[in-house]
Amino acid sequence: MTITLSATLAANEDIERRRRAGERVLHLAFGEAGLPVHPALRDRLAAASGHNGYGPVAGAAALREAAAGYWARRGLPTDPELVVCGPGSKPLLYALLLALGGDIVLPVPSWVSYAAQAALVGSRPLLVPPPPGEGGVPDPGRVAAEVRRARAAGRTVASVLVTLPDNPTGRLATPGSLARLVEVARELDLTIISDEIYRDLVHDPAPPFTSPADLAPERTVVTTGLSKSLALGGWRIGVARLPAGAYALRGKLLAVASEIWSAPAAPVQEAAAYAFGEPPELVERVALSRRLHGTLARAVHERFAAAGAGAPRPQGGFYLYPDLGHLGLGGSAEVARLLLEEHGIGVLPGHAFGDDPGAARVRVAVSLLHGDSPEQRLTALTSDDPLRLPWIAADLDHLSRGLRALASGRA
Amino acid sequence: MTITLSATLAANEDIERRRRAGERVLHLAFGEAGLPVHPALRDRLAAASGHNGYGPVAGAAALREAAAGYWARRGLPTDPELVVCGPGSKPLLYALLLALGGDIVLPVPSWVSYAAQAALVGSRPLLVPPPPGEGGVPDPGRVAAEVRRARAAGRTVASVLVTLPDNPTGRLATPGSLARLVEVARELDLTIISDEIYRDLVHDPAPPFTSPADLAPERTVVTTGLSKSLALGGWRIGVARLPAGAYALRGKLLAVASEIWSAPAAPVQEAAAYAFGEPPELVERVALSRRLHGTLARAVHERFAAAGAGAPRPQGGFYLYPDLGHLGLGGSAEVARLLLEEHGIGVLPGHAFGDDPGAARVRVAVSLLHGDSPEQRLTALTSDDPLRLPWIAADLDHLSRGLRALASGRA
Repeated sequence: MTITLSATLAANEDIERRRRAGERVLHLAFGEAGLPVHPALRDRLAAASGHNGYGPVAGAAALREAAAGYWARRGLPTDPELVVCGPGSKPLLYALLLALGGDIVLPVPSWVSYAAQAALVGSRPLLVPPPPGEGGVPDPGRVAAEVRRARAAGRTVASVLVTLPDNPTGRLATPGSLARLVEVARELDLTIISDEIYRDLVHDPAPPFTSPADLAPERTVVTTGLSKSLALGGWRIGVARLPAGAYALRGKLLAVASEIWSAPAAPVQEAAAYAFGEPPELVERVALSRRLHGTLARAVHERFAAAGAGAPRPQGGFYLYPDLGHLGLGGSAEVARLLLEEHGIGVLPGHAFGDDPGAARVRVAVSLLHGDSPEQRLTALTSDDPLRLPWIAADLDHLSRGLRALASGRA
Repeated sequence: MTITLSATLAANEDIERRRRAGERVLHLAFGEAGLPVHPALRDRLAAASGHNGYGPVAGAAALREAAAGYWARRGLPTDPELVVCGPGSKPLLYALLLALGGDIVLPVPSWVSYAAQAALVGSRPLLVPPPPGEGGVPDPGRVAAEVRRARAAGRTVASVLVTLPDNPTGRLATPGSLARLVEVARELDLTIISDEIYRDLVHDPAPPFTSPADLAPERTVVTTGLSKSLALGGWRIGVARLPAGAYALRGKLLAVASEIWSAPAAPVQEAAAYAFGEPPELVERVALSRRLHGTLARAVHERFAAAGAGAPRPQGGFYLYPDLGHLGLGGSAEVARLLLEEHGIGVLPGHAFGDDPGAARVRVAVSLLHGDSPEQRLTALTSDDPLRLPWIAADLDHLSRGLRALASGRA
């Protein structure tokens, strides 16, 4: 087993080191939401600072009920008994892999940690690209073929994962692709894991959002958290919604959780219960975040397009996934290296997401453009024209200059 | 793989359910410290409520430096680069098992989660009882024999674990046993994992405390946390001190951590950095906690001894491990069942700790005797004679009556 530090976390630590050493680096490599904590959540955390009991492994009842309400408001009636909380959706995904057993079908490219977690639990993911122009959903026809082939070879394939909307591509799977995937999952008896941590950040104007849980509630696990929509990554809180009637899976998941992490931090659970209740000030905060992420993702997309890069238009979250293959500079690692070392632009190579190392695709995160201080970030959040804020305009200029220089081979 | 909910967490949830249903149950089954959060820590958490970045996987620099200072003050000079933080010492122990690979030697009885974690990572623990009268340390001579036998059979044995002082027995391994274990570990090239989460709760008058890290700094990992000494179980914070020069192990551990949990909650890290700095008010808090745990452990020990149970005198933490075999009632599960269902006394059966199911040993936790409200608990903490507080005296009477009734076969 060769496991290395999560590529996104490693890139972030590298860039932070360079910045501390005085290098001017545009930080487009890390999936942190880049916004301050809403004061209402700070107040809730402070008010819950006396909570020091371990509490239930599944999470406090108030948090599970609030999360159930969150899903119910999205057309997914939810039994709080089938909600399981964890210190982030990442550990929940890890525990799900252990609890479900067998191999998993992953879209490729996909978030760096899915395949790494599979390696940790000793399973081999089946990597399937999305239908053309999509992201986050493995092509249903190819899923069926791959699963049949793997099973014929004696392997146990238990699940398939989708990311809605997607990291790294920023794309949202179409309802048609999801419907076909659900059909395949039913036919082959696969559990669907739907990672919807960016769901509330689908940009305006919003395309219709379909969760596999709408189509196949009997076999879909939905995971989400507050790291992206409310910028609480460092607070470590995630929730999973298990399939209808999946009490056996719940038991296994809690068993794993109880032996690895016990429960999320109790004061954080209290604040998260408030957040999943979606009070007006937090609904507004998420709406502003969605607007800002969309504005920046489109602006950065335009700059890559102007540099001649092919890049599907981002539809949600704060990522895009341009292809710089037209420059003939090499594979994604080389392109990422050149961007960082020659042009002070930090991105992640597509191969970290399981993509073909020979392709020149890189993942670009736009959320650290908001600013370096909480004040700048809050200004960006509430601005009607964040692209004209001097620090954002300067960074976008840096990006444009860097892309032009990259194209002309100049440092 | 059959993994069930952690026995301690499951017992706690069962007892809480019974209490909510109106049953009178004396809660001696759960290892929660049973004391309020110190106000200085509440203030620190609140002040850090704006911290929402993911931060370094190893933990914030301030926390790692504070933990290094904590160990330095205990005679263990520590490089902050070799400190790794996690959301509890439990996940750190899990990640260590994955990072070290191979099988582990565990003392038996030992904390419920060690063997369960080994099962999760697919390794088979070698279970070795302690030298007579001790707890938390596997008998060094038998360790050598078992490891040689396992290796001769083709197994990889990589590590050996000690708990200082011990859960469930409440005993502190003698310096002599530790010295012999270190010798065996050197001879057989085993990494020693020393779980010292109860270290600061060794009762007064304190026996001398020896860590394997004092004797074999080149091969000892020490884990600890704030769950027990400062009653912060629900905050989920732990730290590991890696062996001198163990940068490769550090890399593997961080890789695992980055793919499972990312980092402990950022505001909790801030408060923990303050705590590991050991300011006077927290040193006093730990001293009061130590005194209270010792007083209650001795009082409960006397009651079991009065009932004719053999029980080694507890030396640290808040547990004792009496043997009710003289009553001839059956194995530990049956004795625990009788105590709970017939006498309203919740304890854990020794077999949950890997002990012989036929033995009638049970683990008794005394820390939830402090009271049901924060006010009662604080009163117990500062009382010079907590045994005379009415709620504690009543619970101790309940225990004595229950043990007498158990002995006479009356419900």
